[in-house]
Amino acid sequence: MIGGHGFDRGLLSPSSAGRAIEHAVGDDAFLQAMLDAEAGLVRAQARLGVVPQQHADTITAVADARRLDLDAIARRATETANPVVALVAALTAAVAAVEPAAAEYVHRGSTSQDILDTALTMVAQRALHIIDADLAATADALARLADRHRGTAMAGRTLTQHAVPTTFGLKAATWLSGVLDARQSIAVLLRDGLPVQLGGAAGTLGAYLEFARLAGDTGDTYAAKLMHAFADELSLAEPLVPWHTVRTPLHAVVSALSLTTGVLGAMAADVQVMTRTEIGELAEPTGPGRGASSAMPHKRNPVLATRIRAAAAQVPMLAATVGLCLVAEDERPGGAWHAEWQPFREALRLTGGAADAASELSDGLTVFPDRMRRNLHLAGDFMTSERLAVRLTPLLGKIEAKDLLSTLTTRAHESGQPLHALVAADDRVAAVLDPSEVTAALDPADYVGAAGLLVDRVLHRHEMSAASPPGPRQ
Amino acid sequence: MIGGHGFDRGLLSPSSAGRAIEHAVGDDAFLQAMLDAEAGLVRAQARLGVVPQQHADTITAVADARRLDLDAIARRATETANPVVALVAALTAAVAAVEPAAAEYVHRGSTSQDILDTALTMVAQRALHIIDADLAATADALARLADRHRGTAMAGRTLTQHAVPTTFGLKAATWLSGVLDARQSIAVLLRDGLPVQLGGAAGTLGAYLEFARLAGDTGDTYAAKLMHAFADELSLAEPLVPWHTVRTPLHAVVSALSLTTGVLGAMAADVQVMTRTEIGELAEPTGPGRGASSAMPHKRNPVLATRIRAAAAQVPMLAATVGLCLVAEDERPGGAWHAEWQPFREALRLTGGAADAASELSDGLTVFPDRMRRNLHLAGDFMTSERLAVRLTPLLGKIEAKDLLSTLTTRAHESGQPLHALVAADDRVAAVLDPSEVTAALDPADYVGAAGLLVDRVLHRHEMSAASPPGPRQ
Amino acid sequence: MIGGHGFDRGLLSPSSAGRAIEHAVGDDAFLQAMLDAEAGLVRAQARLGVVPQQHADTITAVADARRLDLDAIARRATETANPVVALVAALTAAVAAVEPAAAEYVHRGSTSQDILDTALTMVAQRALHIIDADLAATADALARLADRHRGTAMAGRTLTQHAVPTTFGLKAATWLSGVLDARQSIAVLLRDGLPVQLGGAAGTLGAYLEFARLAGDTGDTYAAKLMHAFADELSLAEPLVPWHTVRTPLHAVVSALSLTTGVLGAMAADVQVMTRTEIGELAEPTGPGRGASSAMPHKRNPVLATRIRAAAAQVPMLAATVGLCLVAEDERPGGAWHAEWQPFREALRLTGGAADAASELSDGLTVFPDRMRRNLHLAGDFMTSERLAVRLTPLLGKIEAKDLLSTLTTRAHESGQPLHALVAADDRVAAVLDPSEVTAALDPADYVGAAGLLVDRVLHRHEMSAASPPGPRQ
Amino acid sequence: MIGGHGFDRGLLSPSSAGRAIEHAVGDDAFLQAMLDAEAGLVRAQARLGVVPQQHADTITAVADARRLDLDAIARRATETANPVVALVAALTAAVAAVEPAAAEYVHRGSTSQDILDTALTMVAQRALHIIDADLAATADALARLADRHRGTAMAGRTLTQHAVPTTFGLKAATWLSGVLDARQSIAVLLRDGLPVQLGGAAGTLGAYLEFARLAGDTGDTYAAKLMHAFADELSLAEPLVPWHTVRTPLHAVVSALSLTTGVLGAMAADVQVMTRTEIGELAEPTGPGRGASSAMPHKRNPVLATRIRAAAAQVPMLAATVGLCLVAEDERPGGAWHAEWQPFREALRLTGGAADAASELSDGLTVFPDRMRRNLHLAGDFMTSERLAVRLTPLLGKIEAKDLLSTLTTRAHESGQPLHALVAADDRVAAVLDPSEVTAALDPADYVGAAGLLVDRVLHRHEMSAASPPGPRQ
Repeated sequence: MIGGHGFDRGLLSPSSAGRAIEHAVGDDAFLQAMLDAEAGLVRAQARLGVVPQQHADTITAVADARRLDLDAIARRATETANPVVALVAALTAAVAAVEPAAAEYVHRGSTSQDILDTALTMVAQRALHIIDADLAATADALARLADRHRGTAMAGRTLTQHAVPTTFGLKAATWLSGVLDARQSIAVLLRDGLPVQLGGAAGTLGAYLEFARLAGDTGDTYAAKLMHAFADELSLAEPLVPWHTVRTPLHAVVSALSLTTGVLGAMAADVQVMTRTEIGELAEPTGPGRGASSAMPHKRNPVLATRIRAAAAQVPMLAATVGLCLVAEDERPGGAWHAEWQPFREALRLTGGAADAASELSDGLTVFPDRMRRNLHLAGDFMTSERLAVRLTPLLGKIEAKDLLSTLTTRAHESGQPLHALVAADDRVAAVLDPSEVTAALDPADYVGAAGLLVDRVLHRHEMSAASPPGPRQ
Repeated sequence: MIGGHGFDRGLLSPSSAGRAIEHAVGDDAFLQAMLDAEAGLVRAQARLGVVPQQHADTITAVADARRLDLDAIARRATETANPVVALVAALTAAVAAVEPAAAEYVHRGSTSQDILDTALTMVAQRALHIIDADLAATADALARLADRHRGTAMAGRTLTQHAVPTTFGLKAATWLSGVLDARQSIAVLLRDGLPVQLGGAAGTLGAYLEFARLAGDTGDTYAAKLMHAFADELSLAEPLVPWHTVRTPLHAVVSALSLTTGVLGAMAADVQVMTRTEIGELAEPTGPGRGASSAMPHKRNPVLATRIRAAAAQVPMLAATVGLCLVAEDERPGGAWHAEWQPFREALRLTGGAADAASELSDGLTVFPDRMRRNLHLAGDFMTSERLAVRLTPLLGKIEAKDLLSTLTTRAHESGQPLHALVAADDRVAAVLDPSEVTAALDPADYVGAAGLLVDRVLHRHEMSAASPPGPRQ
Repeated sequence: MIGGHGFDRGLLSPSSAGRAIEHAVGDDAFLQAMLDAEAGLVRAQARLGVVPQQHADTITAVADARRLDLDAIARRATETANPVVALVAALTAAVAAVEPAAAEYVHRGSTSQDILDTALTMVAQRALHIIDADLAATADALARLADRHRGTAMAGRTLTQHAVPTTFGLKAATWLSGVLDARQSIAVLLRDGLPVQLGGAAGTLGAYLEFARLAGDTGDTYAAKLMHAFADELSLAEPLVPWHTVRTPLHAVVSALSLTTGVLGAMAADVQVMTRTEIGELAEPTGPGRGASSAMPHKRNPVLATRIRAAAAQVPMLAATVGLCLVAEDERPGGAWHAEWQPFREALRLTGGAADAASELSDGLTVFPDRMRRNLHLAGDFMTSERLAVRLTPLLGKIEAKDLLSTLTTRAHESGQPLHALVAADDRVAAVLDPSEVTAALDPADYVGAAGLLVDRVLHRHEMSAASPPGPRQ
Repeated sequence: MIGGHGFDRGLLSPSSAGRAIEHAVGDDAFLQAMLDAEAGLVRAQARLGVVPQQHADTITAVADARRLDLDAIARRATETANPVVALVAALTAAVAAVEPAAAEYVHRGSTSQDILDTALTMVAQRALHIIDADLAATADALARLADRHRGTAMAGRTLTQHAVPTTFGLKAATWLSGVLDARQSIAVLLRDGLPVQLGGAAGTLGAYLEFARLAGDTGDTYAAKLMHAFADELSLAEPLVPWHTVRTPLHAVVSALSLTTGVLGAMAADVQVMTRTEIGELAEPTGPGRGASSAMPHKRNPVLATRIRAAAAQVPMLAATVGLCLVAEDERPGGAWHAEWQPFREALRLTGGAADAASELSDGLTVFPDRMRRNLHLAGDFMTSERLAVRLTPLLGKIEAKDLLSTLTTRAHESGQPLHALVAADDRVAAVLDPSEVTAALDPADYVGAAGLLVDRVLHRHEMSAASPPGPRQ
């Protein structure tokens, strides 16, 4: 417990512990991002002639998380309800130890929220790139699966019951469609860029302008120039105005994360169904120790799908918390701002873990077409009863056709007789349909509708999107 | 309780009862939208030569909610866990009563989810137009306020305390900025259009194709043509593939609604603060009976802000529910689909009520600049202590300057003496600053930074967005 | 849309439309509950000599929802952000039409929140009785299942994979255990009773006391006597103090509802798994039209489990909304109070629908022990690999035993050979275990641990709880 | 980033970083709790003669978190989606290094969920004691405030507007009432105790029994004895049956936490209102650096209330996540279990931080009765218009009395004239009331109803509850 190392080291976060996302959004990364914001701000001021360049350089050099005591800053944050006050004190001292004159320019004209919010978007932008790379890999893997299994028939299931046939290619394409939606929502964010925060104590940039005036810049547009230069220094976007109380950027990020874990969660839920012992149509990639149980030697748990489901079960509520924090009163709210940080970071972390698992899962998924075929025939010929009803509709009328099939499937179910035998033996059917037509109609593998065309449409979209990557900002 | 009228008639929904949104998303509207979907589907099939045109016309004519017994359909929905099965039976019977041959073509090849999901997007698209109209009016009103009060100084407040001065123009522009963000998120949805749903029993369009084949169309692209024609008939968008289990369209809508109630909620929270008896800087529009209390004759409650806050406190959780439902297993999930409907509708209803109230609130808001000025001076000269610290920083050094002002404001606070007197009397200050400079620095109305420039940036964005309306779909 | 009937008539609520809960929590019921609160209040005042008894009687007689125009009240509620102001006006007019002198005593000394909150707890108390009756029936049915299937072996599944054997009796007992937990949480609420609200305009009961003084009661304890009499008139509990801003009673109710839909949802999730076409161990009760599909004649959807899952997917977020509203500022908050009503009512409605479905589901569930046995053997002898590891542990050491079984199950899985053959052929095993011991150890039906004892513990708890019903209040 | 220390060290958690709760629920504490569970289990088995006592002693001695590499365990947890598999391997190795024979008995017959769930309840039970101690201190401080300010009149406010007078004593008593509710909900949990988890691989305790049989215990009741002994070793409660999929204990904890942060949040919201610069009725306790701003020298932010609000804005959604996880399928769900851990821990952490802040806030709150009195008179005599309406009701009739006061308060508001002058000048009033009666009625400090009696009722409850502490378990 010494030094507070026990706060949270990932012990209860198997989805993200040790993955790239952990480092991108962890406290070390946040501390560095806040320091980057301080350094970017002073460099922007130097660019505009308000701070001597050499002092900006010194501050930039010193603004290294390894020089500061993160735990001490975290603990002192309780006094001010945010970590920036303590951070500024620590950075100022560290700079002063190198060059006292430079220390004067640390956090000049600034406010805690400018630094912390900029760190939030900087961390988010980096994390979104990591997430998107995993989504891109997932999309590629799913495209391969959809293509390879374009004609692999399997049982379509609705409300847990066999419905009509589909193909595994269409299932993979449907997952891919969701992943492309998620990528698109992230691409919009990365294309526009997430904004820096810059407003000063109450959103007017008052003190920034005062310092500029002291340095001789009395121009009306200094505020605009500073927002632009600050964003440019940090490779973030320039906001139209301060967004201290208009939290659209954070809401947009968590909306995209909620979509992402949702579509990955849908894929994971399908994988869980299809890897069930009784269904056995899919298997997760294996490896030494992967999916082991602490008790049962035979167990190979679908741990990747499990980790994705666990993330998908949490992110929407974290997004809702950020959504509620949109209701931000005054020029900075007392609570709504502070309640955003952990849910925002945790949503990034969980989504990163889910995307990492999805990339591995989709790439290594084993498909068992034989088992799919066997399951397809499990429920007799029931799965094509809809098709037979279609054939009979013009002959018997819609209602009679459906009622007839309903009766015959019930009878087949209760008696254990095959449906096609009962259908062939039915006088009303015999009067209108040839037995060979009945048999042909009842082949499930032949009744997959437009599955192939739909696969192609998604693959085409995937190719188009792969050709136009999200954007240049890193 | 006869006829189920007591289910929910708006008694506990003062935000939306009786407003335009109520009619757009109520059960009558949903029933009609499902009927519109059935009619649009058969017309699309007629367009493609699969159904005789006159039967499509008959079905369209009969597909009128006033002809059906909504309550009976609602109650029979419990047997199938969705209302479409009962709706199809009722519609088929109603059509058969007019023209038995036409009844054969009702719901041909279709599935409950195609009809219900299409009704969800149709209702949503109409509701978003209503919401956006209120947001447009709100934006216009806020733009007028921002323009008129560009120079109206008021106290900037952070964590509930006076911070540094700002202007009411900037506050209104900040609200406007949020409203423009919300409008933009809705505009994207309306520009692209919300999609129809079309997939048949398990997303392959199998039965639609079977019926087309019976009618002689064996082409590979029939599925694509049907999706296109169906969307066209209903003025909705054509989906790439069925989205039975990829719920991106619904998630996108609720994300936009969460943003909308959030930014309106932020405005409402400010209005509530600023109408407090002790603050008195704003007043809500009044009218006969408006804001009355059942007990206190003098009460004029800010009911518009209250209604907005009530909506903003609910929508994020409804959005989270829809977000969780993204995890949809199989070709149609048993629960995740069914759990979406009410939260989705309720989110539309609450947002519609909030936008309606916001439009009225922003248009009729009374501003009291005198009171703002008085409050600005309430806390002595403290609000400009930051500015004085800036002035003293190059003279005394950053830390000493801030410490000095900290000490003097504490002393001023405890002694009740004006800050400028203590500052003027301080030797360290006197050594570097002229008393007249001190006095000038301490005028709060003069310390509003870039407020004017920021107002102009938002007004410019407003003008640009007003010039390019969201899109043609209605 | 005339008369606002289209607001919400249950079309999208198949879980609750037409069930007892609909009538208990619908708008008709709420209007009547508010009227009951007004009538109970004036009767309480009459009891204390502050209002003439005959006027209290007249008000009680007139306070009938059928006499008032609910839709008009709902629509006028927008002006005051709550329906009570309009209700009081309408009731006053209705009473005046009968006896003008009595009208003077309507809502005397009261405030909107006293009436609306009392209606909330009154409706909730009635709804909890309905819910609990369904839970009691569910518990009884599950107890029968647990008892009957005490020895019915089935596959225990973890993370979707076969783990070790269990019994269906233990599964039913585990569901029952959750239902008993839910009943207990409701029993605590019903035993203590939900409180009336009584505080007047700002929680001091000021106007109630003024009216009492006018009537000659100047006693210090009038407030206490009025709270007591009001509660007594309505068969609700007497609060210690007004809870205008201490929303514990509502939070306690939604916590119990969240638990209830959660434990029912767990049962429903199991039913969905076990009714999967490939698993087929359970079937939902059937009936005419039950579980029908709009497309597929053969479909029998598990609609009861689906309805329960849909409710369980919504209630926690509604509970969270009520939880957030605990943060109620001032003597009555502008928003947090208003945001509670619909989520609170909807949580009651969904839970009522889920309990209704659970009662029907548990009573009519068909169990297929043969299929359970067949599935148990599906995965070869793997399910008992844990047991064999136990047997080998003292002989080979824990790590070697588990590694050996891991290796052998992997080899069996890959080769398709039965595990017992590989085990019997293994030299290390042969050295320590007799082949007959291996065979005995690998019988899954024999490896159900303490399942029977655990079933008995739950059945005993059920009998105890059935013997002590929740309490006398109705 | 070496060693994963950067995961989360409290940088974004100013509510809890460095407080007692941090250590109680951090990863170090969780690791130790899992080790305590392993040690408790083997001691329980030793008690029952199934494991040699000396090996149980060795395992207990080695089961010390400082001996293991937490970061390595956390990272290896990704392979199995839970940390127990890696923990068992590490503990086994550590024990083997001391005494190989003892290593055989580590985790004997157990399963990951038994260890992790027991750690969850163990950590929760300890955290609840910490939280309750802070709530007890808060309650004591609020009782002192309520008592001291029993007669301190202040403005009652509803929907942000002055309503009728109340007392600060009643406000403090109302806060206390909420805190006592929270304490009561925690007391129930601590009185009954949170249960250990014990079920083995699929809830039948199968392997525990196998090992017992190997040791010669073939009794039917071994499972019951083991549950009892395990609970006793860890000072936790004995469950009736395994709760692997019946998550009532965790739901009960988060419900209590949601209530706790909610009632504290209500207090914090009031403190924020009352410390507003314009209202100034309260001030938070101060201290060096407390509430400092990074920009403004004069700022004293109400950081304690802010930290409480931030917690209260997050916990309900974390509780909802745990609520959703009640829907746990199979004998162990793949996702619903895993999604609980972080939200459960974070809810404990946030509540601990909020209770810590509340204790400090309530103890050090400064009250300004003069300012309360001044604010009470701010809105002229309006606050007592209700009382005057009461007085006039029997004389003029209820409707005329309220209308008259409505008219007069509007006129007073618009003209700036005092209400009492307008009332006294009104002919209808003059006809029935003496001017001195009018003046007396309009004294706000005299119109506080039953505030004193209500304070006494809450203080009495506080004394009663203080006399009966929550229970003996620590």
